[in-house]
This record gives sequence, C-alpha cells and structure tokens, in this order.
Amino acid sequence: MKRIFDPVHHFIELSTAEARLLDLPIVQRLRRLRQLGLAYLAFPSAEHSRFSHALGALAIGTRVFDTLVARGREFFGDDSDVAYQRRLVRAALLLHDVGHGPFSHACEAVLGIAHEARTKQMLELSDVVAAIAALEVDPSHLLGLIVGDAATPYPVLRELVSGPNLDADRMDYLLRDAYFTGVASGRYDAEQLLASLRVLRHDGRVVVGVDRRGVVALESFVMARYMMFASVYFHHTTRMFEHILHEVLGELWPAPRALDPIEEFLRWDDFRVLNALDDTQSEAAYALRNRVRIYALAAEFNGERDLSAFERRDSELREQYGAGNVWADSQSQLLHRLPLGIGEEKTILVQTREGVVDAREVSDVIAKLSGKAYWRKLFVRRIALLQNTNRRLRGS
Amino acid sequence: MKRIFDPVHHFIELSTAEARLLDLPIVQRLRRLRQLGLAYLAFPSAEHSRFSHALGALAIGTRVFDTLVARGREFFGDDSDVAYQRRLVRAALLLHDVGHGPFSHACEAVLGIAHEARTKQMLELSDVVAAIAALEVDPSHLLGLIVGDAATPYPVLRELVSGPNLDADRMDYLLRDAYFTGVASGRYDAEQLLASLRVLRHDGRVVVGVDRRGVVALESFVMARYMMFASVYFHHTTRMFEHILHEVLGELWPAPRALDPIEEFLRWDDFRVLNALDDTQSEAAYALRNRVRIYALAAEFNGERDLSAFERRDSELREQYGAGNVWADSQSQLLHRLPLGIGEEKTILVQTREGVVDAREVSDVIAKLSGKAYWRKLFVRRIALLQNTNRRLRGS
Amino acid sequence: MKRIFDPVHHFIELSTAEARLLDLPIVQRLRRLRQLGLAYLAFPSAEHSRFSHALGALAIGTRVFDTLVARGREFFGDDSDVAYQRRLVRAALLLHDVGHGPFSHACEAVLGIAHEARTKQMLELSDVVAAIAALEVDPSHLLGLIVGDAATPYPVLRELVSGPNLDADRMDYLLRDAYFTGVASGRYDAEQLLASLRVLRHDGRVVVGVDRRGVVALESFVMARYMMFASVYFHHTTRMFEHILHEVLGELWPAPRALDPIEEFLRWDDFRVLNALDDTQSEAAYALRNRVRIYALAAEFNGERDLSAFERRDSELREQYGAGNVWADSQSQLLHRLPLGIGEEKTILVQTREGVVDAREVSDVIAKLSGKAYWRKLFVRRIALLQNTNRRLRGS
Amino acid sequence: MKRIFDPVHHFIELSTAEARLLDLPIVQRLRRLRQLGLAYLAFPSAEHSRFSHALGALAIGTRVFDTLVARGREFFGDDSDVAYQRRLVRAALLLHDVGHGPFSHACEAVLGIAHEARTKQMLELSDVVAAIAALEVDPSHLLGLIVGDAATPYPVLRELVSGPNLDADRMDYLLRDAYFTGVASGRYDAEQLLASLRVLRHDGRVVVGVDRRGVVALESFVMARYMMFASVYFHHTTRMFEHILHEVLGELWPAPRALDPIEEFLRWDDFRVLNALDDTQSEAAYALRNRVRIYALAAEFNGERDLSAFERRDSELREQYGAGNVWADSQSQLLHRLPLGIGEEKTILVQTREGVVDAREVSDVIAKLSGKAYWRKLFVRRIALLQNTNRRLRGS
Repeated sequence: MKRIFDPVHHFIELSTAEARLLDLPIVQRLRRLRQLGLAYLAFPSAEHSRFSHALGALAIGTRVFDTLVARGREFFGDDSDVAYQRRLVRAALLLHDVGHGPFSHACEAVLGIAHEARTKQMLELSDVVAAIAALEVDPSHLLGLIVGDAATPYPVLRELVSGPNLDADRMDYLLRDAYFTGVASGRYDAEQLLASLRVLRHDGRVVVGVDRRGVVALESFVMARYMMFASVYFHHTTRMFEHILHEVLGELWPAPRALDPIEEFLRWDDFRVLNALDDTQSEAAYALRNRVRIYALAAEFNGERDLSAFERRDSELREQYGAGNVWADSQSQLLHRLPLGIGEEKTILVQTREGVVDAREVSDVIAKLSGKAYWRKLFVRRIALLQNTNRRLRGS
Repeated sequence: MKRIFDPVHHFIELSTAEARLLDLPIVQRLRRLRQLGLAYLAFPSAEHSRFSHALGALAIGTRVFDTLVARGREFFGDDSDVAYQRRLVRAALLLHDVGHGPFSHACEAVLGIAHEARTKQMLELSDVVAAIAALEVDPSHLLGLIVGDAATPYPVLRELVSGPNLDADRMDYLLRDAYFTGVASGRYDAEQLLASLRVLRHDGRVVVGVDRRGVVALESFVMARYMMFASVYFHHTTRMFEHILHEVLGELWPAPRALDPIEEFLRWDDFRVLNALDDTQSEAAYALRNRVRIYALAAEFNGERDLSAFERRDSELREQYGAGNVWADSQSQLLHRLPLGIGEEKTILVQTREGVVDAREVSDVIAKLSGKAYWRKLFVRRIALLQNTNRRLRGS
Repeated sequence: MKRIFDPVHHFIELSTAEARLLDLPIVQRLRRLRQLGLAYLAFPSAEHSRFSHALGALAIGTRVFDTLVARGREFFGDDSDVAYQRRLVRAALLLHDVGHGPFSHACEAVLGIAHEARTKQMLELSDVVAAIAALEVDPSHLLGLIVGDAATPYPVLRELVSGPNLDADRMDYLLRDAYFTGVASGRYDAEQLLASLRVLRHDGRVVVGVDRRGVVALESFVMARYMMFASVYFHHTTRMFEHILHEVLGELWPAPRALDPIEEFLRWDDFRVLNALDDTQSEAAYALRNRVRIYALAAEFNGERDLSAFERRDSELREQYGAGNVWADSQSQLLHRLPLGIGEEKTILVQTREGVVDAREVSDVIAKLSGKAYWRKLFVRRIALLQNTNRRLRGS
Repeated sequence: MKRIFDPVHHFIELSTAEARLLDLPIVQRLRRLRQLGLAYLAFPSAEHSRFSHALGALAIGTRVFDTLVARGREFFGDDSDVAYQRRLVRAALLLHDVGHGPFSHACEAVLGIAHEARTKQMLELSDVVAAIAALEVDPSHLLGLIVGDAATPYPVLRELVSGPNLDADRMDYLLRDAYFTGVASGRYDAEQLLASLRVLRHDGRVVVGVDRRGVVALESFVMARYMMFASVYFHHTTRMFEHILHEVLGELWPAPRALDPIEEFLRWDDFRVLNALDDTQSEAAYALRNRVRIYALAAEFNGERDLSAFERRDSELREQYGAGNVWADSQSQLLHRLPLGIGEEKTILVQTREGVVDAREVSDVIAKLSGKAYWRKLFVRRIALLQNTNRRLRGS
C-alpha cells in the first residue's frame, strides 16, 4: 500500500496495483500539465498540476462511492461487484485527464482531436494495458467511464467520473483551485454535500442525486462554481493570455497532423511549450513567456441583458482603434444545468419526503441561479492605445 | 497598548483608553451573552460570545475605516478629524452590542424595551461616562452611531456601525460564526471586499459602496449571508429552542417592568437565565436546559411560492394533532437590500467606469438574489405524535 | 443515526443508543463546563465547552481504534469483540469528563473529591444506568476505562481513554484548544500520527505505540503539547485568575461536604459559579466576574536552572511588598513521559525495523525534550505596587 | 499600484516601479524554478515556484520592517531614510533568488558558480539597471543586501534579506512550504513572532532580535524549521531524486563553462532541464522524468550518536551489494544557530527586563535544541536487491 499526502484530502492510499498505474509515464506526465493552465499569470500561486488533481478526484470519488453504497446497497450488486466497481471508478478517476494536451482546450482547438480520442489511444499502449490488467479491471469499462459512454453498464459511476453536475472531477477541482489560488469563496460545504449524496431512481433511470438535508450544501456547490468562474477561470488576465496562447500554438504546430501519433503527442506538455517559446521569434511567444500584457482591458459586461451594450462598445472600439486591435471575449457558463430537451439528464434531483423532485423546486436560490452566467470583455492592444494617445497629443 | 489575540483577525490592539472601555462591567458582561444565542444546541461549538465579536467588529471596522480614508481622504477632514473619527468608530463598534439582554431578540420581545434604549441608559452610568471622557470622544456622537441616528454628523461611520449592508458588525459576525460553527460556505472574500470599499457620492449623499473590482467579493458576501441563514441562523433545532425559550422567559419574568432599571437588567445574561431554569418547574425550562426536543420537524418550505403549500400543510397538521400541538415558524430575510420607497438608502452602490450604479445593474447574481428568502417550518409536539401513533395502533 | 457538525472533526455520527447517552443531563451539563476553564480571560475566544471536546474525543478515538484494528486485527478478538470494544471505547470517551466540577482542578482542590469518584457515582444514577444498558455495554468496563483501572480487561482501550501519552483525550484537546484560541503552533500532524499508531507487544504487555514512519509526527505532538502549555495553559493571566478563583470557591463553598451528594454536585457548573459571584461581596469575586487584574506579573523564569534565581527574586519581592502581597506560581509539566521506576508504563514505544524501542532512541528531539519543563512566575498585588510608588513619591 | 493575491499573505501591493521590477524576464523566470526543487516527487502538491516565494518574502519582510521602525524609530534616520530603506529592502527581497539555477544547489555544485555571483551579473543587465534606476535605489546597496555583504551600510536590512536566523526569506518559505505541502506542523506563530521583532543594540552592534514576549513564538519558529527539514526537505524520496539529478546534470552539461555567460545561464530553468531529459538516453534521466525509484531506502538514523551505527550498516550493505550499489546520504542542519567563534553573530538575542541575552538563556527548549540535527540515510539500488533475492532463491 502506498500513502500520498495532499493538502486538500490529507492521506490518499493506493493499492500496489493502483500505484503501478500512477507510475505510468502517461500519468507522471500529468505533473507537467497545470490544472489551471495560464491562470498562474493572474494568480501566481495557481501552479498545481493535473497530477495532484487526479489523485484528489480519486480520493473524493472514493468517499462519494462509499457513501452511495452505504446508503443504497441495493444498487451495487454483491460484495464482489462492489469491490470491482470501487477499483473501476478509482482507476477511471486517476486516468480521467490523461488525454489532455498542453493547456488543454487551446491545444484541442489547434490540433483538432478531442481528449477522449487521445485517451482511447493511450489505453492501448502496452505498459498501460499491462497495468490495467494487473488491476483486474476491464479496459472497455474504464474507457466507457472516462469518455462518458452512454452505453456503459455503470451509469452511476459514469456520473461520478464524467457527469455534468455531481462528478468527483468537479468536486475536487473546486476545492483544489480555491486552495491553491487562496480564493475563500470558492469553498463549498463538501462534508455536507458528500454526506447527502444518494443513488435515486427516477423515471426508470438510476441517477446520482442528493438527500433533502443536502440542499443547502448543493446551493453552496452551485455558488462556489460561480465564484470560481467569476474570480479565476474567466479572470481578464487569464483570458488575455489564453488568447495569445492560441496564436502561439498555431505558430508552434504549423502542421497539426504531425502530432496525431500518440507517442508524438505525449512528448508535449506545458513545460515543453513554454520552452519552445524561447526559440520562437514572435511577439506573442515572448509575451507569453515573460507575461507581457499586449492587451488592456477596455470594458466588462457580466449581465445577461448587457449583450447590446457589449456589441455597441465593441463597434466603437473597433472604429476607434481598428478591428485588428480589438479582441472581444464572450464566455458563458451554465451555473446549474437545466433539463434540456427530452432526456432531462442534466437536472440535479433531490429526494424529498414527497418523492424525487428537481432541485429548482426545493431551492429558490438554485431556481434563480439556473441558466447561463455571462462574462463578456473587450480588450484593446496597448500599442494602439499608445498610438492613439500620441496622435491626440500631437493634434492638440 | 494592549494586544489581544483572536483566531479570526489575529492580534487586535487597543490603546490604554480603549482598554479601559473594554474593562467596563457592561463590556465584560458581553462574555456572558452568546453571539448566536441558542444555536449551540444545533452546532455544539457555536459557544462564542458577543465579547469576542465586539473586538472583532472593532478590528475589521478599523481596517474598513483606514481603507476608506486612504482611498477618499477628502471625505474625512483634516488629520485631527481623521484621528477623532477613528477613535469614535472603534469605540462605537466595541460598545455596539452592550444593550442586548440574554438571547437578544427573545429578551426584547418579552421585556418590550429595545436594545438601543438600553444602550442609552448604559452610556449614562458613571463609570461608562468616565471611560468615554478619558477616550476624548463625545458620548452623543457615540450613541448616534450605535443607535443609527439619522441626524449624526458622521453618516459614513454610522453605516460602518449600524448600516443595513456594509457594516463592520455583519462583516465580523459572518466570518466569526462561520469559524465557530465550521460552516465552510459561510466564508466570503473579506480581503477583496475590504480592499474595494469606497466612500461614494450619490444624489447629494455620501455613502459606503464598492469599487467595480469588488463586485465579485460583494456577490460572495451576499451568498455567505444566505448560507449562514440557511445553515445556522434558521436551523430547525435553533428555531425550535428559540420558540421554547420565549415561553420560558415569560415564566421567568412574570413582571417585565421589574427589569426596567438598568442595574436590574444588567444582572441578567445567558448564564443567569440557564441557571434560573434549574429552579423552575416547567417542562419548557427543563427542555431548554437539557436539550429535550419537545417538537419534531414535520415539514419545511423554502421557496417563495410555497406559501400556499405551507398553509395547507399547517391546516392539515392542526386538524390531525390539535392546534395547540403545532407550531408554524415563518422566517424571511432580505438577501440583498432593495431600494425601498423614496429613501433608496438600502441599495448597495458600485463605482463603475460610467458612474455610480445600483449593484443589481452590474451583477446578475445580486439582481437575481435580491429580495426575500423564506424559511417556513412546521413543528408538531412529539407527545402528540406519539399519542397519535398509539391511537392508530389501538385502532388497528 | 444522529449527525453532529464540529469544526475540528467535521461530521460526527452517533447511533441511536449513543445519542441517548448524549442526551443525558450529566452529559448536557458539560456544555456548562468550559474546556479551558478561565483561559478565556487571556484568550477571549477560548469559550468552548467540555461537551464539544467529549464529542471530539469520541471522533478521534474512533479513528485511532479503527486504525489499530486494521493494522493489528489479532489483538482484538473476533468480529463481535471488535464491535463491542468499539461501542465501549466510544461511550467511555463521551463520558470521560462527566465527573468534573466547575473549573475542574480548582473545584477538586476545594471540595476534596476526585473526579473519578464522582464519575463512579454518576454511572449509578438511574437514567445513566438505563442508557448504558440500552447501549449493551458493561458499566464496569466503562468505569474501568474512564478511571484508568489497572485491572481492566481492555488495556489498549484504557490507553486511548486515560493513558498518559497517546490518548484520544489529549489528541482532541490539543487540536481543539489550538483552533479555538487560534494558536497556530499548537497544531500537530494529526493525520500522520493517526495513520502511524499501532498496538505493539513489548515485555509481555500490549501497548499503544507508533510505527517508525510516525516518529516525526510524534515529535510534532510533543512540541505542540509544549507550545500549548507555554502559550495558553500557563499564560500568566490564566494562572492569576485561577489563583483568585481558588479563594473565591473557598468563600462560595464554606462547607465542602455539602456538595458530597451527587445531585447537589451536579447542580454546579461554571455558569452557576459565575452567577453566584454576583451575589458575593468579596474583592476576589468581583475581580473574577469583571476581569479585574488584582495582581501584576513581576517576573518569569522558564528554565530548569532558574530555581535559585526565582527563589531569590521571590524573597526580594516579599521583603519589599510584604509576603501577603506576593504570589509565587510554580508549574511544571512532563513534555515527554519518562520510564519512571519499574513499570516503564510511561514511555512511548516505537516499532522500528530492529524491534520495539523507546522513542528517545530514535528521536534526538524527543530525547532532548524529555523531562520536565518549568513555568515559574512571580506576581505582586497591584495595590501594594501603588502604595509603594506613593510612599516613594512622598519620600522624595 | 498593482495588487497580487497570495494564499499565504493575501493581497500584496506593489508600486508602479516595483511592478516594473516584477515584469523583468529575470524575475518572471522564477516562475520556472520550483521553490522546493524535487520535493514534488514526495509531496505531489509542492509545485510552487520561487516567484510566489519572492513576492511572499517581500510581503512578510515589509511587515517586519514596519514593525522594527514603529518600535525602534531611532535606528532608521529621518522620514526620507525610512522611505529609502523600505524601497531598498522590498526590492532586495523581490530579487534575492534570481541568481539560482535549475534545482538550485545541484546546479551550483555542477556548474561551480555561486548564485551570488550570478546575481551580480544579472544586476548589470541593461533592462535590470533601468528598472532599478526607476525605483531610485542604489544598485550596490541592493547587491550588498542580497549577497550579505558585511560592509553594507544597512546591517539590519541585511539580516532581513540574508541573515542566518530572522530573515524574511525563511519566514516566508516555512509558511509557504507548509501550506503547499500541507504539513501542519510546519506552521509557526508568525503573528506573534512578527509583533515581537525589535532592533537591539548589543556589544556595539545593532541586530534584529526579539522582545521577551516573543520567546514562545521564537521557539515555535525553531521547531517549525526542524519539522520541515524532518518531513519535507530531507524526505528520503526527495533526497534520492536529488542524488539522481546530480548525475543527470553532469550528463546534460558536460562542459560547465558553456553556461558561464549570463544569457546562456538564464536560458535554463527547471522546466528546460525536465524537457532536456526527454532527449537523453540515460537510465538516470528516464528515472527522474518518470519518477522511477532506482534506489530503495535501507536504513535511517536521525540521532546524533548514531554515526557509528550508520557507518557499520553502510559497510555491511557495501559488502553485501557492492559499493557501487549503495548510496550513503548524510545531512545535518543547525536547528538554532550557535555563537560560533568570536563574532557571536549567529545567536538570536532577546530583550528581557534585565537586558539583552542569548535566546538559550531564557528558553530551555531553544537551549536543548541548539546545535545540529542529523538525517542519515542508506539507499541500495533496487536492481541489486533484486539480483540478491534471485541469487538467494536459486541458492536455496
């Protein structure tokens, strides 16, 4: 048994076979992918990696699994089924992020291959196959959980690994990102939420939901998610450098197909990208490496109804500084997933005295906050601002 | 100089004259009034007193004052004015709770004298008069801040002491109550909020508001307030014993007028009440002292639209168990104060690039959460439940 | 099942039979005994009760028990034995402090009956007998653990409840007192220590010791203990008021025998004492209630070799101010218990690769810190200091 | 003014000229040097950089400076002197680590140039010269503080920047390393220590010491330092990989002189080294990149007197496995600096009622812990262990 210390979850224990999984190069590589990508340029201490997050997701996911079993033993088969599912969900959480490239989303956008597809390729590498075999877990079950396969025989575990709401991935990263940035309001009542999770039967499906005593903790979870988006994930400095990064990756990988082979892809990580910048001549590469803020924030609009104000200001700025000098960033995020279409799969369900209901029925706060939140920002190149000022000075 | 250690604000420093204020029996008595009244019956560790809260309010209020002065020197007169106002606001925060009786609201309801009136009487006690004189502060200014006198020459300080939103009282008690109960989601981004507070000029008035960079921190403040009401302040166990307490205080003080003289009132504190219960014969007194839950929670409704469901269930229960055995508790709270009527004094204002605006204009979250939150609960006497069960058993 | 929230250990779960134990008036009374007695006069926030400590000891003791069983199943009999011992140790930890009177040691000194004897009497009260019976635990086993009976059939559990070193009592109160005072250096590596505890066989006995990987955590435990004594438990303000308290209790209970009957004893708690002071006329009672510091600290000596310096200064002060105006306080504490005499029962043992050895053999730090630490203080009555100054002024 | 958020010190404010310093590539490069080098291989979350440490040292150093001035105004000249020294010490703390290469000590050992010499070269780079000029600070004063020049006109500031005991460097890194590893016992009473620091006059010198009320906090500082060495800095996994790293750097830089030019040196950081490993063929490089533990820990000895046991075991292992397969690691550390030789410069001095004395005179704990602590470990190559086992198996 291996024991690893983590500031968020304290000791995390791994069996010998799990430790072998952890030792795989595809997992050790996660040490070189930062959990928050470029957010360290806004929050200097946000330098934690996907590696510690993978361990954390395993840790909190195990607690969730154990609670669900303790409170709903009938959903998990016999003792050997429970043991198998526990091994399976732990392995899936440990591996859930291996498919990511450097800076994740930017990388995917430039290279055009989803991380799920990469994961599939990796699970076929010979050392990975051997380690999974040693763990006595079916690799297709594992892949099904990670990529969120609708046909998995383990829909409850899939929710824990890649579900849209109550997944261990999110439960860990909110706590972890709040800890490493120091943003106090990013903490939610994890203890209460964990204690309240239940497998619920609803409309012929089994889903992960919460007991009525966990509604306030669920509200805190929704609010913490909002706070982290507002404070950290969509911080204007983070967004600005992500924009620059996109340009840089295009220069760095002029032929995206060259990274198709998984061995080639695996050579890349955040640190290799940062290093490669050093040998690149572009302004963007220099800016990213040395945190030169090429853009200045000109305006922010966070309200739903601000769209027209945002567009108006965007036009004004483009007129004043030239379209090439203005970058309009428009991000949105579902605070609480809504029942979309027929499937209703994205609602959070609550077990009340009167039956299973939608979270919005028992929580005014969740009802009010359901739907999208918006973060729209306008940036102008500093050089254009400067030229403009100079022109004005000369004109006067 | 005296230095006192506090887990929330670390060292709190007092001048010699302030330490003399702290040593007054009316302030030492605050050690025997619990900040959260009966909430320790739901959260055993919530045993902190109004004394440490008074020190905490002084500590955080001083930080707020210093920021407001640093960022808006023009609102505070010359150096000697600033020094005077700093002494004044610190003294007011230290004394802001002295007028409370045991278990605060319950006491006021039974005795029928507001804590503001009690405070006025206390400030006329000879040792208090002498201590205030030694501090070189005008007692009428002090009283004006504590009771929220509209005619005070220091409206900014009045907001810090007894304002409806951004007061140091609230800023401390949220942090403190979250720490002593351990409720994680009760924490807000105090550092960011403190750094963002500003004196703003609006409609010919000066008010305390926030800089646009503080909007997210303000959102966290509104949310933390909600979480503490939902988790702690209106916890069903707390509310149940507050209901019982009301009955007990009526027994204890059959002649409320007897406590009119301030010396008589000052003899009473939480601990004297708990002691007095011991010599009382009633069921309620015994229950309160030994945490006997006379009532069981039968139903909860937290949504705005639940009023009719609540009333319907209330009727059903009264019919089933008898009206005397049912207690309907209906609490509400403004999450974010709204502009009510003409005064508009209760809005939180934000300084943006475009001018001073209502917080709801720049924050969708605050806009959505503005208005009242509801906590409606129905309790039934356990003895009635038991009799009912027995009847049913005999009937079958 | 009952679930209680605690800021130190998060959720603490109790079975129905344990909850009945918790509801006993002798346990609810612990809410009115402060864990740190008068230390709140030095650290205002140290107002936590023995009640939350009793729950905390149960919580951490359960974790210790579960680790000891997981790592040394052979020491605990069959499954039903393990279940019995778990119930037993949890009940013992919940009840371990019920025998204390107001302000604990001072009370014992004045009344002359040890808390162990009181506990024995309480366990014979009819409601207590019934609650223990419902828990299916042998009351004599319970009493044996609490009073540290050498003849108990459960020596390992006795160490957890009332052992001299690695007991759950100490493990909880260090964490709890550090949390509620805010003294950062009082924290030890509880997670590492808990994970390292083992039942060891040594010289034909079974004892609780630590695995070699836990030595550093054990060092942190010894150091944290030292820091709490130095910062909090022997703080000069705390000690001064404990001295005054002794005098006050003597006045309050002129006939100690009157409190011999357990019903009479149980009527007393910290709050009743504080209340009773109000009706007492003495200077000491007034001082204690209103935190009037009758004494001033004149000198402190914390070194082992300072004894002669301390005695010399004591003589000087007595000469100068009169013996009745000087109070010499001399406290000492074993930092790490030593093998005393034949029994060797007070050593901490460590399991190394080479066998079980004394902690001092594998830790230089523990070896160096073993033995007594001293806190000697000299106080002079303020009135005498003042008179002395006046005399000098008149004389000049 | 720029405001940066840090989880340890909350907001850190920089003036415009200081922000320009922070933007220098030599400072931004600190983001690519990890504060704890390879310790992340033992504590996965210990991924924080020297960049956030540099900001933290500036933050805590400023608090120390402000306290020293407030409590010893006479040591700091007139107002403009104080302002100058404040700018100077903040800049020195921000820059104090720029001279480090990848993995610091290992790099220095292989390349043979001390970081102080590198710092000197860097301060002569044109962008650095310009930024220092803009800050209106004399570069020679700056260099003097960073390299610990005995002839500096600012000996008090030198102690804060590069002193052997009470320096801001150490004050920050202990707090920071404890936070990012999660090691609870690494925390010391920073608030109390900071409040107790004083400039003392002793033997004709001025030194930084502590007020008598800070002795317990000083003890906590000494103990925290010990705990971090024992738990983290000399953890066997960390040490093992540092040993492997040394070999790797030798391969990577076969011609150390090639890195003499400062531009060449500055191209290297932790991330470039990790990348370069990828293209290296050696077993050591692969091991370092993928955390392959080539060695197993065979024995540990932490006591002072263990030297002969350590040497005996070392011989045995070398005999059994071959000298080339055994690595003996012997580290020691002064817990509390002693008066060494004539200068006495390394004692911590305490201001008592009776005058300035050595800390060991007023603290038994510091006296006992003074001197060296030892961490001696023996490692054997796993391959040799395996071969040995195989031989034994074949032999039997």
